[in-house]
Amino acid sequence: MKNHLQFIGIVHSPLMKLEDCPLQENEESPVATIEVFDDFIEGTSDIQPGLELILFSWLHRANRSVLKTHPRNNRQAALTGVFSTRSPDRPNPIGIHFVKVLTVLSKNEFQVSALELLDQTPIIDIKPNIAKR
Amino acid sequence: MKNHLQFIGIVHSPLMKLEDCPLQENEESPVATIEVFDDFIEGTSDIQPGLELILFSWLHRANRSVLKTHPRNNRQAALTGVFSTRSPDRPNPIGIHFVKVLTVLSKNEFQVSALELLDQTPIIDIKPNIAKR
Repeated sequence: MKNHLQFIGIVHSPLMKLEDCPLQENEESPVATIEVFDDFIEGTSDIQPGLELILFSWLHRANRSVLKTHPRNNRQAALTGVFSTRSPDRPNPIGIHFVKVLTVLSKNEFQVSALELLDQTPIIDIKPNIAKR
Repeated sequence: MKNHLQFIGIVHSPLMKLEDCPLQENEESPVATIEVFDDFIEGTSDIQPGLELILFSWLHRANRSVLKTHPRNNRQAALTGVFSTRSPDRPNPIGIHFVKVLTVLSKNEFQVSALELLDQTPIIDIKPNIAKR
């Protein structure tokens, strides 16, 4: 299928429940470990400590039928089109996360700074953060 | 299917051939029009001129089997793991584009600044660029 995603890896994090997750990465998120699956290891050969990355996640617990939402779960806020919000509930629940590589643990595992993702969240892409180079 | 993408819209651009596309958005890309498909229009109700957005595209012409590449199509550059590059050829060919809304043309069409995407490229998500607010 042309429009199906391959999960390239998974997040290991102390965040076990949705209610534990900060709303954005700068709100006291913990260090997390990214495990890259065997089929994709070759693509991570140049990931090194200090690199600024953009991680793309697939927010697998999201409600994909939402088109209007109250930003930041605030019922006082006006109902807003999802494409003007960062809500995880949206037609394609892609998460975007600006992180720094802290440690490379093995050929298929590396640690990143402050990541607001739940343990076991799938990773769908990793790109260098060009703006930070 | 849990991991299949819905195309929420499509790009209309004067860029008709891959060889016409700049490598990054800051390299003289043209204005483009984003057409949002009927099923998703409600999600775009708060998109207004001046808004800074992150567009997510699906680079449908990409080679999804590539794990190592020469950055920027430069054969002199060292073969690099794709996840340390912005190559469109990668397991999940998600494009990320930082643009500004110029004009809202109708309830399902708006124009954005400098976009390096080919005409007819599918759009898979739109988020506000929080860093620019």
